[in-house]
Amino acid sequence: MRMVDLIEKKKEGLVLTKEEIRYIVEGFVQEHIPDYQISAWAMAVFFRGMNPEETAELTKAMAESGEQLDLSEILGRVVDKHSTGGVGDKTTLLIGPMVAACGVPIAKMSGRGLGHTGGTIDKLSSIPGFKVELSQEAFIAQVNKIGLAVVAQSGNLVPADKKLYALRDVTATVNSIPLIASSVMSKKIAAGARGIVLDVKYGSGAFMSTLEDARELASQMVSIGKSLGRDTVAVISDMNQSLGRAVGNSLEVLEVIETLQGNGPEDLLAVSLELGAWMLVVGEKADSVEEGKQLLRKSLDSGAAWERFLQFVSAQGGDCRAITNRAFELGTCQERILAQASGYLQKIDARRIGNLAMVLGAGRETKQSEIDLGAGLVFIKKPGEWVEAGEPVLLLYSGDKEKLTEGLLMVDKLIQISSEQPELPELIQEVVR
Amino acid sequence: MRMVDLIEKKKEGLVLTKEEIRYIVEGFVQEHIPDYQISAWAMAVFFRGMNPEETAELTKAMAESGEQLDLSEILGRVVDKHSTGGVGDKTTLLIGPMVAACGVPIAKMSGRGLGHTGGTIDKLSSIPGFKVELSQEAFIAQVNKIGLAVVAQSGNLVPADKKLYALRDVTATVNSIPLIASSVMSKKIAAGARGIVLDVKYGSGAFMSTLEDARELASQMVSIGKSLGRDTVAVISDMNQSLGRAVGNSLEVLEVIETLQGNGPEDLLAVSLELGAWMLVVGEKADSVEEGKQLLRKSLDSGAAWERFLQFVSAQGGDCRAITNRAFELGTCQERILAQASGYLQKIDARRIGNLAMVLGAGRETKQSEIDLGAGLVFIKKPGEWVEAGEPVLLLYSGDKEKLTEGLLMVDKLIQISSEQPELPELIQEVVR
Repeated sequence: MRMVDLIEKKKEGLVLTKEEIRYIVEGFVQEHIPDYQISAWAMAVFFRGMNPEETAELTKAMAESGEQLDLSEILGRVVDKHSTGGVGDKTTLLIGPMVAACGVPIAKMSGRGLGHTGGTIDKLSSIPGFKVELSQEAFIAQVNKIGLAVVAQSGNLVPADKKLYALRDVTATVNSIPLIASSVMSKKIAAGARGIVLDVKYGSGAFMSTLEDARELASQMVSIGKSLGRDTVAVISDMNQSLGRAVGNSLEVLEVIETLQGNGPEDLLAVSLELGAWMLVVGEKADSVEEGKQLLRKSLDSGAAWERFLQFVSAQGGDCRAITNRAFELGTCQERILAQASGYLQKIDARRIGNLAMVLGAGRETKQSEIDLGAGLVFIKKPGEWVEAGEPVLLLYSGDKEKLTEGLLMVDKLIQISSEQPELPELIQEVVR
Repeated sequence: MRMVDLIEKKKEGLVLTKEEIRYIVEGFVQEHIPDYQISAWAMAVFFRGMNPEETAELTKAMAESGEQLDLSEILGRVVDKHSTGGVGDKTTLLIGPMVAACGVPIAKMSGRGLGHTGGTIDKLSSIPGFKVELSQEAFIAQVNKIGLAVVAQSGNLVPADKKLYALRDVTATVNSIPLIASSVMSKKIAAGARGIVLDVKYGSGAFMSTLEDARELASQMVSIGKSLGRDTVAVISDMNQSLGRAVGNSLEVLEVIETLQGNGPEDLLAVSLELGAWMLVVGEKADSVEEGKQLLRKSLDSGAAWERFLQFVSAQGGDCRAITNRAFELGTCQERILAQASGYLQKIDARRIGNLAMVLGAGRETKQSEIDLGAGLVFIKKPGEWVEAGEPVLLLYSGDKEKLTEGLLMVDKLIQISSEQPELPELIQEVVR
């Protein structure tokens, strides 16, 4: 087999066999196939796509390229959850304790954020003392004990994806749906869960900008999951507006705390209940999404989810007093943005909110950037709400005065107030199963 | 400027600026831009194409990447000729002395053959003593003295193309028309001629298999030539049938000798007269192709072209007695193929003839392969001619008995005889100017 022939085949729009795809992945990881052939192949895949069998095989070969988690020692049917990333998306922190409280174990590996979308690991790092790295034994023991553990993705998990992603990142081949689908799914497959619930977001603040692309990505990921024997569901949700009121690591954890105590924003709760309910269905604790939602609401109302959250934080070394006292270090440079007129707050593009948070210090521009965990913003008023002239609309936080000043320059254009109430999109668009 | 953004731009089908194209070529040659980015970009170019300005700029930047010939010391308007390659294509050896005899100087750099198409330098190497490498001074002095010199392409000419071609060859990005056009033209531009006549072949034995592709390639090359101030003409000719009667290096030189002495095959003469006449037009020695053809025929009839050929061989150290005595070493393993029936010899696919010649030893399978200069084949009868049962149709030559045996296995399917006279295609299809 010669790689140049496989590139040619894909370039001509033909289908690669399982053996050919395995040859590519193994050759790339073992460095028999040079980067310049892989990048040309990835560009051909961008233009020609891959069929479901090819995508599943690519996923499988990548998942098998490194360590694979064996979760067989965990009691119960482990379910994983993945979001394609959005602005203000803290659903994992909320769903984790709720679903665990309902009896479905969650053993989750998560990533750090890049660009305007945050990462769960960064959010958890804002809890004083919280450890995001556990040995595999400690990880499994914790899941068996409290039903929930969230750790940073191990370096040995799916080296093929790590290597391929790094190459795609510098060769303009990131936005290929089959390559995205196999990248996400290879990590889920290697992480060992039997069930997978995917939150596929679309809109200005998401990786997929159109519903059509999100649908395609969702359907490819579900197809891969099923091919590889995992019960997989994808929920397609709107990310043209940021989720909840808070954007930024510490601020989002504070919002999770409020929500677990029953004071959360509607949109965040709606998405979390939908995703969590599917996790209960896939985890065989609920027969329907409706039943799942009822169970989750009960776990909130009874305080069971809150209790589980505290156990989780404590088990990973986090300071529970910081949680109960809301004692998080927030950026000391703060600014309230006041409404210039009375009226309805209009919609605010999620990507611009993400970029504003990044400018304030809450996100990484490059993988090397340091995050300011206390930076970010909070919506006092959410788009669609009525506001009186002079009332505060937005709070900005940063640890750096210059960054705050830079952020302030971006705010003016974001806040629009009008007498017409804006129509907000449906949050949950579709479910692919 | 970041290469990843330029790949993205091309991937999205946008047009790159002159500065961006120059940045790519210079970065590649100076090794600031890694191969894996160039190969991804080349694949994007395969799918998206380039517009005439981009292609011209790519050609210019590549031509300027190394040494450029200064032919200003040559008296007269130097005209270059290039063929995209075909089976039995020995036109350069024929046209060179004819055109030079008509007063247009030819200072030509030529390549070695690869695959089933032969290279002029290999053909010249079959003349005992012939030197294909000359210093630049000797090269120019020879053109000024006898109007004709043909040498192997210098290693310092267009390093960007050499590097890019090597990368395209292993990344399945060879067959992109704008990349082919700029590759060919960059070498012609760097080689310094003011006028360029291109022989663009199409058909089974050519690089372009369809007339449509050949037309596109011809029109892109003419457009590049004009953009860069060279008077450029492309003749599109059929290469579904091999040209002339001989295929193989020594055998083709023998056919050139016969043709210069007035005994050549019609098809070879027709293509040579068309190309040569255009060289006289571009070289400002003829006002029309018709006038050009008359002048060329005169140079043949008067013996001036033959005389010029002997001067050329002698000037480059070749043994003129070998020419006049036809003393070429031919493969000692020979076989005559006889007609199994009486009838008209049917058409024979040029690529299969090329492959047969390669199997006999006349071509290179890889750049490292050694050529058997005395190997090849001669058509005693050409397709379209009548043959009696038992008469010889084809002669095979090889220096290696096993290769001859292998070649013989291929012959049976090639020779078809039928009572119907086959219709042969028009040789000269179009001229692009």
